[in-house]
Amino acid sequence: LLSPVMTSTITEDIEVLVLLPQNNSYLFSRAKVAPAIRYAQQRLRTDGGQFSGFHFNIQFENSDCVSDALFLLVDRSCGQKPDLILGPVCEYEAAAVVRLASHWNIPVISAGALAAGFGNKNTEYSQLTRIAPSYVKMAETFTAMFRHFTWKSALLVYEDDKLERNCYFTLEGVYHLMADFNINTFALHQDERLDTDHILQTIYDTEVVIMCMGADKIREIMLAAHKQRLTTGSHMFFNVELFNASSYGNGSWKRGDEYDSDARQAYASLNTVTLLRTAKPEFENFSLEMKMAIKEAGIHDCKDCASVNMFVEGFHDAMVLYAIALHEAMKRGYSKKNGTEITSRMWNRTFEGIAGQVSMDVNGDRNGDFSLMAMTNVEEGTFEVVANYFGVNGTFQLLPAFNADRFTLRGRHTAHAHETPD
Amino acid sequence: LLSPVMTSTITEDIEVLVLLPQNNSYLFSRAKVAPAIRYAQQRLRTDGGQFSGFHFNIQFENSDCVSDALFLLVDRSCGQKPDLILGPVCEYEAAAVVRLASHWNIPVISAGALAAGFGNKNTEYSQLTRIAPSYVKMAETFTAMFRHFTWKSALLVYEDDKLERNCYFTLEGVYHLMADFNINTFALHQDERLDTDHILQTIYDTEVVIMCMGADKIREIMLAAHKQRLTTGSHMFFNVELFNASSYGNGSWKRGDEYDSDARQAYASLNTVTLLRTAKPEFENFSLEMKMAIKEAGIHDCKDCASVNMFVEGFHDAMVLYAIALHEAMKRGYSKKNGTEITSRMWNRTFEGIAGQVSMDVNGDRNGDFSLMAMTNVEEGTFEVVANYFGVNGTFQLLPAFNADRFTLRGRHTAHAHETPD
Repeated sequence: LLSPVMTSTITEDIEVLVLLPQNNSYLFSRAKVAPAIRYAQQRLRTDGGQFSGFHFNIQFENSDCVSDALFLLVDRSCGQKPDLILGPVCEYEAAAVVRLASHWNIPVISAGALAAGFGNKNTEYSQLTRIAPSYVKMAETFTAMFRHFTWKSALLVYEDDKLERNCYFTLEGVYHLMADFNINTFALHQDERLDTDHILQTIYDTEVVIMCMGADKIREIMLAAHKQRLTTGSHMFFNVELFNASSYGNGSWKRGDEYDSDARQAYASLNTVTLLRTAKPEFENFSLEMKMAIKEAGIHDCKDCASVNMFVEGFHDAMVLYAIALHEAMKRGYSKKNGTEITSRMWNRTFEGIAGQVSMDVNGDRNGDFSLMAMTNVEEGTFEVVANYFGVNGTFQLLPAFNADRFTLRGRHTAHAHETPD
Repeated sequence: LLSPVMTSTITEDIEVLVLLPQNNSYLFSRAKVAPAIRYAQQRLRTDGGQFSGFHFNIQFENSDCVSDALFLLVDRSCGQKPDLILGPVCEYEAAAVVRLASHWNIPVISAGALAAGFGNKNTEYSQLTRIAPSYVKMAETFTAMFRHFTWKSALLVYEDDKLERNCYFTLEGVYHLMADFNINTFALHQDERLDTDHILQTIYDTEVVIMCMGADKIREIMLAAHKQRLTTGSHMFFNVELFNASSYGNGSWKRGDEYDSDARQAYASLNTVTLLRTAKPEFENFSLEMKMAIKEAGIHDCKDCASVNMFVEGFHDAMVLYAIALHEAMKRGYSKKNGTEITSRMWNRTFEGIAGQVSMDVNGDRNGDFSLMAMTNVEEGTFEVVANYFGVNGTFQLLPAFNADRFTLRGRHTAHAHETPD
């Protein structure tokens, strides 16, 4: 990609408006993502290749995950409009910004806007390119598993904060894609007491339970399920853990309390779907630079600062993808103001991102690769990746650590005498 | 209100932007509502009273219930901003427009934007005044009934078109307000086959079934419930029918098919919550003028053209309420550009609307009066209003036609041997 090609260099000034939170509590806060965008900008400039004539003028503005990004975009719309918008990530805010940007024919690339609704690129989100795998892409992992293991029914249990609604949108993706299966849903409201009895009553009827919620609530449900002997193979439990944040992976059953031993055993039935992690040599340098940039900026309060997550990686690759598409469009005589032309050239193509190959589908959404993690050592309570799902060709690949026994449903009751509340 | 008061007349030009659909298939299409707004404008001007100095310059622009209204507002924002916005009605479009108008401090009055989320007037919807009773106000009718009859559990069954989502938002209002009761939900997707067995399975566990969906689906469910003997007093069935459109009221069990007799009997268990209809002498003239205006305009394809619905009435009253508040604010030296001042004067007040008294609560939402209709003659299959709910003081009033027997739950099973799907 970035090797010097002997073509005449195209020069152009490009106004980039980046809409990310100044608030460091987000995984995709400006402080975390800005170094990745700068890194990409630097690479595109100094590689001496075909993109060195692009001069990106990058302006950062706040996204508060409500409406700030929209107001900012509108209030400056009387002057010069940007050529490219990066972000917002949060669903509701992104919806408004992308609609307006599509109306104005401005390309938007986001590592967020992951909800199923953004898949509608015909009109309202026509200029949106999604550089991170959406929730529907993640859901493909479940359909692949359900077909592989011939499971038929699932209960989706999610915590809904009614604000950003990440877990709601995550499992909405599953619901959206799994219309052919027997799917029920159960919403937990953030401020309500967790009624594990009520949830487990609903669990009886389904083979598979897919959960998206905070780690403590997952543990509470698994402990309750274990106590009711639902973790003996009669049900499969899944936890969705996205964003490649380091919040997962250190054995989250452990709390140092009296329930650790039970939790460890319960978690033997809990599998996790997460983004597949890739590592190529260039990525190490990128990762190191990101850490240094955060350190230099003196930021200590940002969430999960040390790790390169999906958003950081995605916004880096957004710059590269845009440069490729813009270059191609301009070579053919189109202007940078022709958003439709540039956007269409970002879709249905594969390119080399910072962590590995990035494949965009025909609808402008990134194909996703996901890993299935399961407990492989019950004494130690440790997890390993046991299978991978590759979105580009839809394959579900079992790894040596995979234990078929753990994924076989057994002892399914054919009828229950559970009482109905009256 | 409109009687001549001997104060010095305040004169002001007021730019009104009305955002309503040009598409006549809506109950609140421009063709239906514009005559009501013009009627109010005329009354305010010619009554010779305190509002005769207000010169409303009314501009109509299209709302397509997606994003047109937002784009229109934004694209003209570089020039002069309007002083008042009327509409949009559709929830998603209104959300974007009201957020932006609140950011710019422009009062918005809508007879729509009925969803629970718009109740948050602290920040994002601070300039929104709702001139028609919201879904949460309608839901008060149910809480009043549940308390009166000491019912405890309800199943909310709604059809979700995933576009404008009127029924979703309608029953969301009930869900929102009835958190203290035992509430379950069941969503029907528009393009799916109606699985009455599945719905009825869920019905067993609850006392009350509240439905929002098309009349044909209601009938299908009621016929299935009747067949399974669920219409014998063990369950209460409710249908929500809003907007004062004439679509309800002619005995909608009747189709002229072989099921009419069963349907009539089934509908003896179906009660309908609808807007309370009021009639004062002035209303007759208004109603007549509206019909004439539609006729003169030569519009034949508009939905439910002949009747004055909630939206038509609401947007008329919006003009009156705004005039009262603006007059009061200007008398105290505030400018028409002080949206916050004007908006606050529209809240927590009662005034005379075209169909009767309009009471706005402290949060700027209209208090609602609703009627409960029930079949009072099973042989004829005719319905009457049997009770009213008055939002302003929260009273639930039984009328002479009310038959207590029909609202008494009996023969409730304490346990069911219904099979669980496997």
